[in-house]
Amino acid sequence: MPMPDPAAISEPVAPDAVELIRAKRDGGRLSDADIRWAIGAYTRGDIADEQMSALLMAVFFRGLDAAELQAWTDAMISSGERLDLSGLAAPTVDKHSTGGVGDKVSLVLAPLVASCGAAVPQLSGRGLGHTGGTLDKLESIPGWRATLSNAEILSVLATSGCVICAAGAGLAPADRRLYALRDVTATIESIPLIASSIMSKKIAEGTGALVLDVKVGSGAFMRDLASARLLAETMVSLGSAHGVRTSALLTRMDTPLGRAVGNAVEVEESVATLRGHGPADLVAVTLALAAEMLRLAGLSTDPAAALADGRALAAYRTMIAAQGGDPDAQLATARHRVTVAAETAGFVRTLDARAVGTAAWRLGAGRARKEDPVSAAAGVICLVKPGEQVAAGQPVLELRTDDADRIDRARGALAGAITIGSEPPKAADPVIERITG
Amino acid sequence: MPMPDPAAISEPVAPDAVELIRAKRDGGRLSDADIRWAIGAYTRGDIADEQMSALLMAVFFRGLDAAELQAWTDAMISSGERLDLSGLAAPTVDKHSTGGVGDKVSLVLAPLVASCGAAVPQLSGRGLGHTGGTLDKLESIPGWRATLSNAEILSVLATSGCVICAAGAGLAPADRRLYALRDVTATIESIPLIASSIMSKKIAEGTGALVLDVKVGSGAFMRDLASARLLAETMVSLGSAHGVRTSALLTRMDTPLGRAVGNAVEVEESVATLRGHGPADLVAVTLALAAEMLRLAGLSTDPAAALADGRALAAYRTMIAAQGGDPDAQLATARHRVTVAAETAGFVRTLDARAVGTAAWRLGAGRARKEDPVSAAAGVICLVKPGEQVAAGQPVLELRTDDADRIDRARGALAGAITIGSEPPKAADPVIERITG
Repeated sequence: MPMPDPAAISEPVAPDAVELIRAKRDGGRLSDADIRWAIGAYTRGDIADEQMSALLMAVFFRGLDAAELQAWTDAMISSGERLDLSGLAAPTVDKHSTGGVGDKVSLVLAPLVASCGAAVPQLSGRGLGHTGGTLDKLESIPGWRATLSNAEILSVLATSGCVICAAGAGLAPADRRLYALRDVTATIESIPLIASSIMSKKIAEGTGALVLDVKVGSGAFMRDLASARLLAETMVSLGSAHGVRTSALLTRMDTPLGRAVGNAVEVEESVATLRGHGPADLVAVTLALAAEMLRLAGLSTDPAAALADGRALAAYRTMIAAQGGDPDAQLATARHRVTVAAETAGFVRTLDARAVGTAAWRLGAGRARKEDPVSAAAGVICLVKPGEQVAAGQPVLELRTDDADRIDRARGALAGAITIGSEPPKAADPVIERITG
Repeated sequence: MPMPDPAAISEPVAPDAVELIRAKRDGGRLSDADIRWAIGAYTRGDIADEQMSALLMAVFFRGLDAAELQAWTDAMISSGERLDLSGLAAPTVDKHSTGGVGDKVSLVLAPLVASCGAAVPQLSGRGLGHTGGTLDKLESIPGWRATLSNAEILSVLATSGCVICAAGAGLAPADRRLYALRDVTATIESIPLIASSIMSKKIAEGTGALVLDVKVGSGAFMRDLASARLLAETMVSLGSAHGVRTSALLTRMDTPLGRAVGNAVEVEESVATLRGHGPADLVAVTLALAAEMLRLAGLSTDPAAALADGRALAAYRTMIAAQGGDPDAQLATARHRVTVAAETAGFVRTLDARAVGTAAWRLGAGRARKEDPVSAAAGVICLVKPGEQVAAGQPVLELRTDDADRIDRARGALAGAITIGSEPPKAADPVIERITG
């Protein structure tokens, strides 16, 4: 049984990848130098994918302590460039959501907070799986561009007070490689790895303040409150340690946010919200996040007023136009619309976010692989929401798609998704708690 | 936070590697079909190294249950050919050692058991790290060949009653790939992975019976009795489940076996043992293993008699010659010999096997990387063993090497390796216990 020995004949000049994996595997802690070396060597290709994935799985089981996590995050930030937002007159503040179903908050929130006097550099992502992505949604607007140069980001920010775009390839490239590796090796679901991935990009982005919207529930990445709280606390600590004023709201994600789930349909619901006709849960979460962002930015403007009087809508239209989009364009509509009916009469007690998200995904709103395109028109409209009363046979969901073949599989995802009872469920505040640094 | 969903839009035709890793990571069990697919797909290159290493690390943490382990081992056996030993007149029986320091047992045992009427198809390995390899030792005999065709293996067995050679590339090729991956990803030290690696090769080799020498102690892979026992029980169960009569002896490996540690020096000590002048611990372990092998082979010959009357030596000489070696050749001698002296007078209480093995390795007897050559002449001679009395300044170890530059680093490995006290240590049987199926 051959066994490598820590003291090899030729002393290694750099830390040894196998020793580093073994140390973490056996519950040891890695030094700052070890971590800096590992992330750097992986980015350069000196640590092989199979070694890094073994290390990531060891981290999944053993975790990273606060010092290790900070070193890990620092190493990811140092792997690339940092945006310099110091030339902006307004205080910068960003928001990051851990992702949910019907989560179109960014589309309303960024222009709303901008209209209150902050600069919002909202670098966003694409959807994968049952959760949607902000960039996919906005791309249903004809002409709108997600990819901007650093100069364009600064210019749109100066013009509109906000920008929503893809993170450039120069920001935390180590995270890009690590995320792709985690995706194929079942090492996504690790709190320190999630936290360092999110925070390295947000810190490199150069924002002065950051509010995290950590979703909790069936449709969220974190299904239980304890994990969500731990993730939020971990990210808040990381942000604070790097000089970014950071706080988090834990918000409910058991049922879709608003009524629209998809791409164009979510843009339409966002514009309706900016016009003052938003669904209550979406408005509540958006205003709570706006208040938190403005607090961190040191601004005392009332966001509810900015939403009501059209200032937020104006900022939205300016931003869309500044990124090449036509805010008045007709959006794509789906060729096929079918409904799902209530089986019995009563009060809707639950409408499962994950099931609805999966149905929208299968209708074409999401992608199975990163390379796949998404359908702008596909999605699900929640005709009723929990707490509302329905008659037997009444339509509760509308499924939209351009591809009729997808409808059966979408219906399959919805088995058991809607429960109806004789009494309405207890109303719950969409914001569960706030975590500050 | 994008998250893949188990139910992707396009149903996978084969099990999905990521789902399989996730299931094991989360403590689930893998079906026979999952395991067969995973090992097969990895051998074909359809599962990437980074996915297999993540799965191996998940197995390290979560283990494999008996059914999973059997499926895993079956899949490794099925990845290649099986030797057919059914044409031999004598009953076949093999031995496998988990590796130790000074462990030249195979060199004496295979011809001894052959001379008692069994056929011994001993497929062996090379050393890595501080433990030596049987093939490296025998290659210090001029002309001797480790690599034989299947036809040659059968022919040497028919002529000599035993053969010691490298496992052919056709036997359990999946294990070859997996072992190389485990070596660079710190996933060697997992009982089910060790057990399936050893047993897949032994079962594919076609032996009817097998005795495992599971070493326990500082110089062994398993340093504690509980782990060694678990490994032994796991391998005995696996062998029995595959129709190979299997048992195990747990034997001590706190101090080197015999007095010689190296390559040529171990061949010389083996020949001396076959001539009736063997060190007591080596003779005791060899005779205990021989008795167990003969019992499983259904033979009642007395191995002590075969060792004493020269039959075993004759079988050894026939085997060496049948593999191209000259049993009378002068073996390599080292250019430099230096001694390590006792610091005080008294009884040798401990002589640490791992330290001596590491010293021999650094002197050139072992290799740092699989590709490295080994020095035939290098090694350590234990001039005294635990229980023996020494004077202050008396030489206790002799270091041999062709490369004087290696001496200082070898001495460095020996710090604290020898302890001397006023009383001899309690004598202990080198065989700790027997585990049968």
